[in-house]
Amino acid sequence: MGVDPGLNCTGIGIVQVWPGKVEYVAHEVVRTDSKDPLPVRLGVICGGIRSALAEYKPSCSAVEDVFYSVNVKSAMLLGQTRGAIIATLLAGDIEVREFTALQIKKAVVGYGKADKQQVKKMVEVLLGRKMGNVPLDVTDALACGICLGFNLTGRLAF
Amino acid sequence: MGVDPGLNCTGIGIVQVWPGKVEYVAHEVVRTDSKDPLPVRLGVICGGIRSALAEYKPSCSAVEDVFYSVNVKSAMLLGQTRGAIIATLLAGDIEVREFTALQIKKAVVGYGKADKQQVKKMVEVLLGRKMGNVPLDVTDALACGICLGFNLTGRLAF
Repeated sequence: MGVDPGLNCTGIGIVQVWPGKVEYVAHEVVRTDSKDPLPVRLGVICGGIRSALAEYKPSCSAVEDVFYSVNVKSAMLLGQTRGAIIATLLAGDIEVREFTALQIKKAVVGYGKADKQQVKKMVEVLLGRKMGNVPLDVTDALACGICLGFNLTGRLAF
Repeated sequence: MGVDPGLNCTGIGIVQVWPGKVEYVAHEVVRTDSKDPLPVRLGVICGGIRSALAEYKPSCSAVEDVFYSVNVKSAMLLGQTRGAIIATLLAGDIEVREFTALQIKKAVVGYGKADKQQVKKMVEVLLGRKMGNVPLDVTDALACGICLGFNLTGRLAF
């Protein structure tokens, strides 16, 4: 299970990975209402994570790591989203790994500075499935899950 | 229950508040090892919050709100800590309110720009109890709890 954290829109991607093979399982999008207070919005995101854990019972999870942000305020909001997601995964007794965007792009596209559209294209190729109009948060989450799978099966090691 | 979030040291303060009266119940300090990976450190903090919820069964909680930070990196770390704490409180089915440092200082000291030592002194006066050498994260957490109590009992309204 890969997660691309975002306060407005969090992407969840579930993939099954064997040595030399990766398969699409499911994706979820969790959106929050910007008019709601922050604790309510975090509660919605945590609920979405809990539902996905209950439904897909992933064996491991990875959350995209973020070091930078436009400014301190948005860093604080993204940080709180990420922290709430990690806490919910840990409470679900699932291992949580972290990969940077650079690591995920290197794993999936082979190039650390690839843009989100290139990531989407390679996710579609690797999963053998057109992703259509799903938000890029979802293809990023699937890329994060693929990167995790490559690491777990020894295809890559960060 | 008031919480002062910090990745190295999170303070938890439990107070009982009636109209016109406030009483000390307990405090806890949760420290993490900076050599551990972030998910492990967040897990330790969430565990401390869960223990305090189980032991003191507070009726409501407040987490100090933080808008500013030294830089984007520390904002991201503090944000993740705060988000993990809020997620854990929500998972414990307890209401979470937010107060800014300014609101807490106004409630407890009567002056929004009071420093942490002044906050500590007023917490000691209000609770009728010397806090000795406890970290300022704890007296800040108790101040946050007192501010919540003042709001719940109608003594203050933010």
